[in-house]
Amino acid sequence: MSEFQSIQSIGRSGLIDEIKSVLKSRNPRIVFGIGDDSAVLSPEPGKQVLFSSESFIEGIDFDISYSPLNHLGYKLLSAVISDIYAMNARPIAANINISVPNKFSVQMVKDLFMGFDSCCEVHEMQISGGDLNASFSNLVISISAIGEAEDDKLIYRSGAQIDDAICITGDLGGAIAGLRILMREKQIWQEDSSGQFSPELEHYEYVVRRQLVPEARKDLIDTFQELDILPSSMIDITKGLSNELIELCKSSKRGARLYEAAIPVSVDTRNVANELQEDVMKYAFFGGEDLEMLFTLPKEEIEVFGKHFADFSVIGKIAPEGEDILIQTAEGDSVALDELSY
Amino acid sequence: MSEFQSIQSIGRSGLIDEIKSVLKSRNPRIVFGIGDDSAVLSPEPGKQVLFSSESFIEGIDFDISYSPLNHLGYKLLSAVISDIYAMNARPIAANINISVPNKFSVQMVKDLFMGFDSCCEVHEMQISGGDLNASFSNLVISISAIGEAEDDKLIYRSGAQIDDAICITGDLGGAIAGLRILMREKQIWQEDSSGQFSPELEHYEYVVRRQLVPEARKDLIDTFQELDILPSSMIDITKGLSNELIELCKSSKRGARLYEAAIPVSVDTRNVANELQEDVMKYAFFGGEDLEMLFTLPKEEIEVFGKHFADFSVIGKIAPEGEDILIQTAEGDSVALDELSY
Repeated sequence: MSEFQSIQSIGRSGLIDEIKSVLKSRNPRIVFGIGDDSAVLSPEPGKQVLFSSESFIEGIDFDISYSPLNHLGYKLLSAVISDIYAMNARPIAANINISVPNKFSVQMVKDLFMGFDSCCEVHEMQISGGDLNASFSNLVISISAIGEAEDDKLIYRSGAQIDDAICITGDLGGAIAGLRILMREKQIWQEDSSGQFSPELEHYEYVVRRQLVPEARKDLIDTFQELDILPSSMIDITKGLSNELIELCKSSKRGARLYEAAIPVSVDTRNVANELQEDVMKYAFFGGEDLEMLFTLPKEEIEVFGKHFADFSVIGKIAPEGEDILIQTAEGDSVALDELSY
Repeated sequence: MSEFQSIQSIGRSGLIDEIKSVLKSRNPRIVFGIGDDSAVLSPEPGKQVLFSSESFIEGIDFDISYSPLNHLGYKLLSAVISDIYAMNARPIAANINISVPNKFSVQMVKDLFMGFDSCCEVHEMQISGGDLNASFSNLVISISAIGEAEDDKLIYRSGAQIDDAICITGDLGGAIAGLRILMREKQIWQEDSSGQFSPELEHYEYVVRRQLVPEARKDLIDTFQELDILPSSMIDITKGLSNELIELCKSSKRGARLYEAAIPVSVDTRNVANELQEDVMKYAFFGGEDLEMLFTLPKEEIEVFGKHFADFSVIGKIAPEGEDILIQTAEGDSVALDELSY
């Protein structure tokens, strides 16, 4: 364990130099990054520029007692660029504003930026700037990302057509299951007076990973491009399937029918729900943070698409306007989404 | 005084609707704003995109006990777009992330966004999105702005040439003088037990205005464009003349000579310094927040430029690399900038 090097000891400009030293990823669109008043990027001719921002507060949106800081950086940037992928576009750069309390060392800030940079490397983007200031007691992280897309390839939430298949990448509810386990272990640790406690996470590796380092679905966007297929609408799942489907249907002015049995949930997520005596469908519908993609595809394209992209499920279809979002449960009942209770 | 309407009573999406209702300003480059995963902007062909971010924390970067919230919104957005003007570019849009504690009402958040929107109107830009979440005790505002410039018109900090005139728009030190007065009145108010105290600000209108609603220098960029003149380097003054001149000289690999007597300071600013028994040059060199522009211009262009733009001063000239930043004081001494003490 290295010594605690305070940020005050090297000052703001010293810390900026340290941050620059860990940022390696580059995107050719960024012609000028950190070091002047603004970053400068050169969009490809004929392309549109996307612009998306989110902020995160320690103690509300994340907990550093169980989030390693490099994982945290990776996760938060992934969450922001997921919004760019959700429009069938690609991230280019992000500006990071952080407000740092005294309890953070120089190394902790560097770890955080190593996480941002790892995410940049995977997604072929770069950190182009940001701001750094003091905070009273909580770390505050605010991220803005820039992306790029061809005009006629942009996908909005509003394009879903009647009878389109409703599709989901990966599986749902894993991130909230991981959070439940981490919070349980934290509580045991806080109540432990022996000082001997170490968390038991080996049985929960999948769900903990889903919580700490979810992956934005670049692979989906890559496949759409390779196959020259366009979804009719798309949204990323950050607030849970229920929320996102309501948003998509509202924007598209459509209803939907879902088959509960088709909603993808991993065995590990189900095991956690069973252990904690909760309904796993609650995790899937209301959990959020999975960073999976919800999209609609004309049903005749499902077969071709499925030959090239395995990691998705068809969970229902789009219905006419005026119809609710109805769920056919595993028991055969039909329930409106807004009447769901677990 | 209207009733305190809590944010909880209308919820997050209710608050977003209220915010949308106060945002009127539009920029034609924004083809899609609030309402999908990302904002979409359509840069003009052949132009570069600028990207700049800053964050501000209540109690550190601003104090709402003397900053009306609409002024605060105006000021903070002005500070961010000033960084875009400082590269001879124009702002198009901004994303605003705010983290709001319980003590804020719906109306207070609306007032803040009215300030953002007023600033947008002046600068022909628009709010294109952002994020909204809870905070424990302090308001946190993080702003990212997007701008646009022709490639060959971008001005960096690094272009200053030997013998170029060093120029400053407006006057310096007013913002810190205003802050000093506001802090003094706040202290008297806090110490007042009669409940009868009302702050005396009528004699200080100019400096208080400089602190609360400084203006980003769009007019300077407009004039450069009209005259087809380009400065050789430029930076905006947010951290005080000293800081910005050091940055500019470092980036340009040059020294500088300043004439202290030429540094523009208003009578009102000087009066405050006298009243508080401080040196007004301390305000000018170290005060910051004035949002004036520091730029260098080939000396042969000063005359033409001055015919069309009155509100600037030549305060010195660029010297060769290796020479310090030297200040010729009003008394005729020559002092290195890093040895200045007031």
